[in-house]
Amino acid sequence: MQASGQAFQDLYPEELSHCYGCGSHNKDGHQLKSYWDGEQTVARFTPQAFHTAIPGYVYGGLIASLIDCHGTGTAAAAAYRAQGRAMGSLPAIRFVTASLKVDYLAPTPMGVELKLRGIPVEVKERKVIVEITVLAGDTVCARGQVIAVKMPDSMLPG
Amino acid sequence: MQASGQAFQDLYPEELSHCYGCGSHNKDGHQLKSYWDGEQTVARFTPQAFHTAIPGYVYGGLIASLIDCHGTGTAAAAAYRAQGRAMGSLPAIRFVTASLKVDYLAPTPMGVELKLRGIPVEVKERKVIVEITVLAGDTVCARGQVIAVKMPDSMLPG
Repeated sequence: MQASGQAFQDLYPEELSHCYGCGSHNKDGHQLKSYWDGEQTVARFTPQAFHTAIPGYVYGGLIASLIDCHGTGTAAAAAYRAQGRAMGSLPAIRFVTASLKVDYLAPTPMGVELKLRGIPVEVKERKVIVEITVLAGDTVCARGQVIAVKMPDSMLPG
Repeated sequence: MQASGQAFQDLYPEELSHCYGCGSHNKDGHQLKSYWDGEQTVARFTPQAFHTAIPGYVYGGLIASLIDCHGTGTAAAAAYRAQGRAMGSLPAIRFVTASLKVDYLAPTPMGVELKLRGIPVEVKERKVIVEITVLAGDTVCARGQVIAVKMPDSMLPG
C-alpha cells in the first residue's frame, strides 16, 4: 500500500477540522489521516495502550470510529475526484455518515499498526458508499461499510 | 426511564473491566454504566467538549462506541436473566460484538446528556441481538443494532 498526496483531512476547511476522529485541529482526538492509493484509499493508526477491549485486544468502538472517519474522508475524496476537482477546492464537499456497519471478524491485537483500506463502491453526488477493511498485519480484523451523505447546509458552521 | 440495581459493568470480573468504553478500571475511558429498566436497559452519557464532529455536534464514532458497549452489556445481562442467575455470579458470562450497525437519524447536539435504551430482541445462549436507541432529550438521534456472541475462551485473560 503506497499512500500518495496530502491527507484528505488536511484539506478539509478549517471549520470542519475539529472532528475527534480525524480533525487536524482536535488536539485530543485521533487525527486519522487518509490517502489515495490508486483507486483505493488507505489510513494507518496505532491504538494507544488505553484503547483496550480486554487486555491484549483493541476496543471495537475505536475500530468503528476509524472506519467512520476513513469512510467519510474517502467519500469526500471520491466525490471531488468524480467531479474532476482538486480536493480542498471550494466550494467544499463534505460528507456525514448516514449508516455505519462493522463486522468484527477476528480479535484485533494491541501493539500493532492497523491499516484501513477503503473502496468507494458507489459514488453519487449526494451519496457515497465506501467499503473498508481493517488489517493487523495480514489478518483482516474487521470489515465495514459507510453510507455517507452530503453534509446538509444546516450542519455547516455559520 | 428509571435505572435500577447495580450497573452491569460494575459486575464484570476484574480482568474484563478494562474496556475503553465501559471498563470501571479504565481511568482514561468512557466508563459507561448500563442498568435494567424493566425489560429494557438504559445508560446515560454526556459527551465531553472534544467529542465533536463539527462544532456543535457529537462525533458519530462516540455514538457507535456507546451503542457497542451498551449492547454487549445488555447482552450479558439478558443472558444472566435468561438463565435465572444473578449478574456477576460465576462462571462469568461475557459477550463480544460480532456485528454493529448504526443509523444516524439526526445530528446529535453537544452539551446534552444522551440516553441509550436497549432492548434484547433475541436471547440465545451464545448469541444475543440488542436494539438500541440514542436520544438527546426527546429526539432520536441514532438507532443501533448489536449482534453479540459469547466471548470465546481464547480471548479470556489467562
